[in-house]
Amino acid sequence: MEFQHLCPIWDKLTPAQHQMISSSIVPRTLGKGAVLHDGSADCAGLVLIKSGQLRAYILSEDGREITLYRLLDQDICLFSASCVMRSVQFEIMIAAEKESEVFILPPYIFKKIMEESAPLANYVNELMATRFSEVMWLIEQIMWKSVDKRIAGFLLDEAALEDSLVLKLTHEAIANHLGTAREVVTRMLRYFQNEGYVKLTRGAVEITDRKGIENLIDA
Amino acid sequence: MEFQHLCPIWDKLTPAQHQMISSSIVPRTLGKGAVLHDGSADCAGLVLIKSGQLRAYILSEDGREITLYRLLDQDICLFSASCVMRSVQFEIMIAAEKESEVFILPPYIFKKIMEESAPLANYVNELMATRFSEVMWLIEQIMWKSVDKRIAGFLLDEAALEDSLVLKLTHEAIANHLGTAREVVTRMLRYFQNEGYVKLTRGAVEITDRKGIENLIDA
Repeated sequence: MEFQHLCPIWDKLTPAQHQMISSSIVPRTLGKGAVLHDGSADCAGLVLIKSGQLRAYILSEDGREITLYRLLDQDICLFSASCVMRSVQFEIMIAAEKESEVFILPPYIFKKIMEESAPLANYVNELMATRFSEVMWLIEQIMWKSVDKRIAGFLLDEAALEDSLVLKLTHEAIANHLGTAREVVTRMLRYFQNEGYVKLTRGAVEITDRKGIENLIDA
Repeated sequence: MEFQHLCPIWDKLTPAQHQMISSSIVPRTLGKGAVLHDGSADCAGLVLIKSGQLRAYILSEDGREITLYRLLDQDICLFSASCVMRSVQFEIMIAAEKESEVFILPPYIFKKIMEESAPLANYVNELMATRFSEVMWLIEQIMWKSVDKRIAGFLLDEAALEDSLVLKLTHEAIANHLGTAREVVTRMLRYFQNEGYVKLTRGAVEITDRKGIENLIDA
């Protein structure tokens, strides 16, 4: 699958822009755990994901994390080109959660085309609004939802992402995703286990009563 | 002061676009407390603030609030035209905190020009990135900062906005801005009063030791 088939606005770009993209785009493989973007110090460019899974998160001064959103096949990672947009005034981390095949458009080419192309600039608007919506959803979760519902929702999301009810996740990893303390996660998972919703083993959480977890979220 | 002097990209628009804007723009006065935008049900259009102060916030199902950001003179309110960007999938409230004079560009005119104008689309990108940055700052505050620092920071921001050390704010109002409980605010303000940082009177908080509050934030 080539870049032009994955790029949703390819047909709205000019032949000269097609030429600029085709001669500068770089395919790359990101190993599991590879950091694509480490705050404003990095500016790899616009990244289109052919296959794999990236995670966008923030990091506190003392090393705590919270997951903002995931990027999957055919998603476009905008903030790896954050140097192009001078109003992006926050530090975001982007790392490969699974081995990923990506196309990278260098920042100066992205900037040049965006400045002259209304279709590309409008597409970037929609992308930014999508990420903004995900972050607003996260704020609502943090502010208004209790931790039990957030952990329950996270387990169901992971089960869907992995297409498996056995999730290879430590309590520490779940805490990092949700920006909470490991002890809080451990206490809640033990409660889930007592209720029969999950079975805990070393380094894994198995969902044994999906319906029970779903009811918890709706409660 | 007319719209073209306040619009930072006026010179990059075409004469036909100038004509479209001039013939459709509407000046309006928003009384203090007026709600300009109430989630996705509303779509007034792009709002440029001539003078005044707007507040963007979210509302939980049970009526709790949290302030996202403020808009002041010459700021542009993008989400009052959220119907134009289909990827904006969140409910935001925008209300006038002070009487405000604004210009409103109807959504269909805004959409039409943005679709054909790379300068406008790029400007909207920068606006969205600015608001995104404010919301990311808020997440970091909520996740990593303690409530005392958040209340301290809020009091200093309000003092700067109002250009006064006497802030006419109830504990309830402060709690609504920060998305926390009134009791938490009351307890913390009493602690601030004991430390000599503030003086509490009915419906107002007076900052009596600005340096002390600043030190609290940096601690």
